[in-house]
Amino acid sequence: MSARQRVTVEDIARACGLSRATVSLVLRSSPLVHPATRQRVEAEMKRQGYVYNRAAANLRRRVSNSVALVINDLSNPFFAEFATGVDEALGGKDYVTLLGCSNESPQRQLQVLNSLMEHHPAAIILSPAENTDARDIDRVVGGTPLLVFNRMLDHDSDGADHDFLGLDNRGGAMQATAHLIERGHRDIAFFGGHANSSSCQERRQGYHDALKKAGLRARNEWLIESAPTRVDACARSETLFAGKTKPTAAVCYNDAVALGLMLGLAHHGLRPGIDFAVTGFDDIPEAAMSMPELTTLSTDPRARGRQAAQLVLQRVEQATPVSPANIVPVRLVERASSSAPA
Amino acid sequence: MSARQRVTVEDIARACGLSRATVSLVLRSSPLVHPATRQRVEAEMKRQGYVYNRAAANLRRRVSNSVALVINDLSNPFFAEFATGVDEALGGKDYVTLLGCSNESPQRQLQVLNSLMEHHPAAIILSPAENTDARDIDRVVGGTPLLVFNRMLDHDSDGADHDFLGLDNRGGAMQATAHLIERGHRDIAFFGGHANSSSCQERRQGYHDALKKAGLRARNEWLIESAPTRVDACARSETLFAGKTKPTAAVCYNDAVALGLMLGLAHHGLRPGIDFAVTGFDDIPEAAMSMPELTTLSTDPRARGRQAAQLVLQRVEQATPVSPANIVPVRLVERASSSAPA
Repeated sequence: MSARQRVTVEDIARACGLSRATVSLVLRSSPLVHPATRQRVEAEMKRQGYVYNRAAANLRRRVSNSVALVINDLSNPFFAEFATGVDEALGGKDYVTLLGCSNESPQRQLQVLNSLMEHHPAAIILSPAENTDARDIDRVVGGTPLLVFNRMLDHDSDGADHDFLGLDNRGGAMQATAHLIERGHRDIAFFGGHANSSSCQERRQGYHDALKKAGLRARNEWLIESAPTRVDACARSETLFAGKTKPTAAVCYNDAVALGLMLGLAHHGLRPGIDFAVTGFDDIPEAAMSMPELTTLSTDPRARGRQAAQLVLQRVEQATPVSPANIVPVRLVERASSSAPA
Repeated sequence: MSARQRVTVEDIARACGLSRATVSLVLRSSPLVHPATRQRVEAEMKRQGYVYNRAAANLRRRVSNSVALVINDLSNPFFAEFATGVDEALGGKDYVTLLGCSNESPQRQLQVLNSLMEHHPAAIILSPAENTDARDIDRVVGGTPLLVFNRMLDHDSDGADHDFLGLDNRGGAMQATAHLIERGHRDIAFFGGHANSSSCQERRQGYHDALKKAGLRARNEWLIESAPTRVDACARSETLFAGKTKPTAAVCYNDAVALGLMLGLAHHGLRPGIDFAVTGFDDIPEAAMSMPELTTLSTDPRARGRQAAQLVLQRVEQATPVSPANIVPVRLVERASSSAPA
């Protein structure tokens, strides 16, 4: 720690010829203080360089001005953009972001949450790791307001005691699939994601919905799992062509998967967007800059981050009952990767 | 806040038939407590679900177990990876990351720092926004240990009072330029970055070093500025070909710029890696996955994040004099984007 002595409330009180209690009232923006007195105290605090000890104030009030943000994969631009949006909105309300990364490990997630809880955050925003056990989260989080983002926890369907913000996964995947059908594709795969994650299940459902509506059917060998990352998607791309009937297009779990698949296609001598059509999900900044540019579903992750922050701060300020899940619509962005079959 | 009553030190003391002071000693891992007593107290804390109130403990000690991390651009994968590494290493030492994003705005950076300082972080890791005024930072940070990452503050050359961790920008750009010369290029541009940032100046210096060594000269019109982002680099790519003598290759300020330039080239009908050679700087994960794959300088941003965390924690634990700048060597990774001239 610095050896420099901190300016205290007592120092300010003494310099102004006021009681410590009066200065405290100023710090708490109490209406009981005369405006002229407030001005005098504030001028003196500025003169002496007084830093409000929020940690001490929070401790007295047993409320913190921090919000814990736990992210499953910060190296995915979707989540980096989300985190940026959360921090923007919290900063605008004078809250501080406590960051933790789980790297998709439920064990690390619990450690991170436990450690963040010691700071008594006012609320928690959790983008859960795959295979998160909801009971573990409940145990650690206790009564602190919690907003879950993106992936539902396993008990979320039957009345969870936390808020949820997610994307319209089913509707989005249905749009992407219908778009490929409209372009003339009949043999369409669903590529990537882990089948046991809620978002993957919902996206696959939307894919089935669109196929069914068009009188088409999905083959089991066209439902291909991968980790939701570029590297794993690239590695698994040949699985798409292992069966007898080969698809001409794939609806991908997310943009990272789609970009990895496009690279894998190129490695196999197929030109993405010409020999094989691909759609993504998220519209991360690279989607518009890949070659070919990626047709995808716009989710505006930075806006989602701001929205998540606003939702938890509302919850902190008002003890209203937990609202139904907030499901945000997504919008198809047509680009070059989803052309008609060759 | 939760209505649930928190378990206190008093509750534990009462249940064990011990004094509050003894339980406190256990919490502070004091060697004065008999091991059997410690075991008994710890078992009781577990049974009652006692959460150690670190905020209170920190307040008593006037030291915090948090480290503030202020990032200039979290949407750049280089910094997202860096932040992930910082959080990994801090978490491993039971510290918590307080995150703030400046989005390259010095004003926002000051707000964020001011807000984080109210939490009395044990140390600060700052990846500064462009055009940061070092005096502003000194004023806000006071005596808290500070590590500056990546870009030097303007007084860093003449004996700063903080630690610095940076990359060997000059040596890296020299390697990349020498590599292009070796491949047969003679007309090589330096593309992207802002000329007033320390990292851009150093990289340009390395570029000049390599040209000079090879008896080549840089033309002024081949020193092209852009924001260090994909979008701006793409927009400015035609500037490269505005002069009479057209370059056949470009050393780019960073990977984001190189990827943006490759897209811009494609838009102008030039095939990157075939008609025009490009190198990057950083080796972000996409560099290995772009088409063509990007020749670049490996900096391992996640390892840099872990290193930054270790350096500041050392500083927190030992009050040694500030060490000279830590400059990390970088390594050329040759890929397809830097082929010989057509």
